[in-house]
Amino acid sequence: MPPLRPREFAAAVLRGQGQVTFLPSVAAGGVFCLALTAAGWEYGLYGLAGTAVGTGAARLLGADRDRVSLGLEGFNACLTALGLAAVLGPRHLSTALLALAGCGVVTVVTGAAGHLLGPLGLPSLTLPFCLTVSATAAAAPGFRRIWHQGETLAAPPRPATGPTGLGPDDLARGFLSGFAEIFLAPQWHVGALLLLGLLVASRRAAAVACLGNAAGMATAWALGAPAAGIADGTAGYNAVLVALALCGGFLPARAATLAYALVGAAVATAAGPAVAALLAPSGGPVFTWPFVLTTLVFLAAATSFPRLGAHRRGAGPAEG
Amino acid sequence: MPPLRPREFAAAVLRGQGQVTFLPSVAAGGVFCLALTAAGWEYGLYGLAGTAVGTGAARLLGADRDRVSLGLEGFNACLTALGLAAVLGPRHLSTALLALAGCGVVTVVTGAAGHLLGPLGLPSLTLPFCLTVSATAAAAPGFRRIWHQGETLAAPPRPATGPTGLGPDDLARGFLSGFAEIFLAPQWHVGALLLLGLLVASRRAAAVACLGNAAGMATAWALGAPAAGIADGTAGYNAVLVALALCGGFLPARAATLAYALVGAAVATAAGPAVAALLAPSGGPVFTWPFVLTTLVFLAAATSFPRLGAHRRGAGPAEG
Amino acid sequence: MPPLRPREFAAAVLRGQGQVTFLPSVAAGGVFCLALTAAGWEYGLYGLAGTAVGTGAARLLGADRDRVSLGLEGFNACLTALGLAAVLGPRHLSTALLALAGCGVVTVVTGAAGHLLGPLGLPSLTLPFCLTVSATAAAAPGFRRIWHQGETLAAPPRPATGPTGLGPDDLARGFLSGFAEIFLAPQWHVGALLLLGLLVASRRAAAVACLGNAAGMATAWALGAPAAGIADGTAGYNAVLVALALCGGFLPARAATLAYALVGAAVATAAGPAVAALLAPSGGPVFTWPFVLTTLVFLAAATSFPRLGAHRRGAGPAEG
Repeated sequence: MPPLRPREFAAAVLRGQGQVTFLPSVAAGGVFCLALTAAGWEYGLYGLAGTAVGTGAARLLGADRDRVSLGLEGFNACLTALGLAAVLGPRHLSTALLALAGCGVVTVVTGAAGHLLGPLGLPSLTLPFCLTVSATAAAAPGFRRIWHQGETLAAPPRPATGPTGLGPDDLARGFLSGFAEIFLAPQWHVGALLLLGLLVASRRAAAVACLGNAAGMATAWALGAPAAGIADGTAGYNAVLVALALCGGFLPARAATLAYALVGAAVATAAGPAVAALLAPSGGPVFTWPFVLTTLVFLAAATSFPRLGAHRRGAGPAEG
Repeated sequence: MPPLRPREFAAAVLRGQGQVTFLPSVAAGGVFCLALTAAGWEYGLYGLAGTAVGTGAARLLGADRDRVSLGLEGFNACLTALGLAAVLGPRHLSTALLALAGCGVVTVVTGAAGHLLGPLGLPSLTLPFCLTVSATAAAAPGFRRIWHQGETLAAPPRPATGPTGLGPDDLARGFLSGFAEIFLAPQWHVGALLLLGLLVASRRAAAVACLGNAAGMATAWALGAPAAGIADGTAGYNAVLVALALCGGFLPARAATLAYALVGAAVATAAGPAVAALLAPSGGPVFTWPFVLTTLVFLAAATSFPRLGAHRRGAGPAEG
Repeated sequence: MPPLRPREFAAAVLRGQGQVTFLPSVAAGGVFCLALTAAGWEYGLYGLAGTAVGTGAARLLGADRDRVSLGLEGFNACLTALGLAAVLGPRHLSTALLALAGCGVVTVVTGAAGHLLGPLGLPSLTLPFCLTVSATAAAAPGFRRIWHQGETLAAPPRPATGPTGLGPDDLARGFLSGFAEIFLAPQWHVGALLLLGLLVASRRAAAVACLGNAAGMATAWALGAPAAGIADGTAGYNAVLVALALCGGFLPARAATLAYALVGAAVATAAGPAVAALLAPSGGPVFTWPFVLTTLVFLAAATSFPRLGAHRRGAGPAEG
């Protein structure tokens, strides 16, 4: 097999950035790259370098050329680099070296996840990222050269406190930050740029993402989540990803799957504090676990419900 | 496919109540319904409405008609409604609405569990209930409109304390309460009614259940469980379910499988505090996790041991 | 099928001891037996009796004769008996009886693991041991007749403290203790005997094990693990097992798999504190979970990477 030429490789890397939202779009990947840089030049660099290292490692190990070209070997590495930067601090040399190693390891984990989930007709989504970075975050305080924060993050789960009433400002900030949190960034203006990237790639995907975000925020409000946790985007990012995956990503986009996707978005939002409670005593952040677990359940169940148009292996744009 | 007529639907709902003990029996389901009402009219209502909503949701989503008729789409929803009532308090409107939603979600989880476990020849048992209600219980303190208890249930696991000697009164109460705890009720008289329901449906199943209960209680006593934890039925309910599943439920009823089932009942009893220790720091009750995990292991292993008459897909009354 | 004659049974038991390091070697098993006795006569007895009970139980339940002869039904029972002795104290009658029961149960768990992992082309490694002993360790404080230590082992995970500089003495002790910790023993001289056993069985395996151990120790040092945790062998034992499994055990021994195995050894070392942090709040020791999880991921991924010579079912000496 001939190697990828530099231009093909660059396109694969940008598509890899786009695949974080299941869109193999060079343009979206470019805008996402700008958005990350707006969150801080280190994050832009970590994201881009992570995608490149993951894409290159997969090619070196002999992974399928089509998967590499579509960016499917890049997006978990992108998130892994960003996740390690967020958890360990981006400006330590130790973090940069660990992110380099992590992008190689997540490529192996992606191969394993494909081997286990493929025969079930399920995609591996961001499971490799979640596994790799959750494990590293839990392990990090045990290693003095990579952990620079003193105490661990471990703490018993706490009940919600604070007011639940939402003002228009909370709503707007929460809505935009929900897009930013997909890439682990908290800033609303980063989210605005990410939404722009979605719009550039596919107006339908952008609309589905907005509906998913709204469904997540509405669920969180209805259940009584504290307003602070809605305004910072925490309540929406898993919902956005679930909606994208279940309506257009891995199931065909139609009315029935949109309804199914919005139920999934609500479930993922409710599942968020459950994942937080399970990981809190060990000191692990939530990342996109609620999205991964909810989507796998809803995709596995979809084969039992004929009205959803089932999902065939390889169906949907993200799986080529 | 023609829809279920009202009378068929009612029979499916009662069979769904019976399927909590793997018996697709209208009569047993009716008696179980009475028993739940004896625990409190709210519990009777939650159980019956839960089964009905689950059965209806499965039918709406287009699940297999035979599965629906046999009650296989109802029992996890029954337990989900009861579990949410027990954890969140039955008399809050928020609990009733959440139980309604939960019965829909558990139907999706049941579809997913069937997709994943079916190819391995394994039934999903009460796994969908355990997943759904454990996740909700862990998440609930993060939402102020559904959690009305102040603190979370999270606490470090504690070593057993208190006397281990059992009087005849403890034994009798523990034995009957072991049946009641299957439906998350603590009262011994509810357990007596549930045992009556088992007897009505199948004298063999009732005998197996009694033996499983006794095996569980004997194991707990031998290992040194505190007497209070035996007298309240905690030591027996998983053992009852394991015995029913492994002898007559999913393996043929014969001497070899009875022995295997009683070993399984003992293992599930020993596993109870392990599940409790794993979930305690996050604040989750044990539910029927020990039964589910033990039975899946013993069923998966049974194919390797020819003397048990293997288990074929669809074997046993519960899988039709 | 004719039963195993006494001499065949004895050989199967010794091979079972050897299979802890994936070597179906009677000689290695004999040396391992001596090494355990050097750690304390009780440990020698628990290990040998455990292997014998597991091997016998598998034969009684009708497990495949070839698997039994190769010792594949013995090594998880060996480790289960040793693990229970280490956690509960070897000199209590309750521990001996529980170990006897545990060796029967782990045989069932091994059957289940084979049923679930076999179709994926994955071996069950020491997963049955880890599951059985982790569950028992978590449950034990709930039972007064088997737990003689008062408090539970549960505690929040703590950040690493203490110096990270290593002297030659630390390196030598850590290297040898890394072999001993495979059998849950901390003494360096036990590790020296175990290394001798590896050498007797296969010089190549011994070399791979030494390289894996060195890779693990180097990783732990580079990440900043406290010197005390390297000098006691904790940093090396998972790495040894990963290297043995991935280079010669379940993948062919060649340059590419050696490199892959050493990456795996490094990953398992980094994963150690992650497993510790996850289990600490419930009170469970780490055992060989990091090895099991890392190796399953690397083996599952290997099928995607043609340069590694893939792994076919039944490939490698350990699967005969």
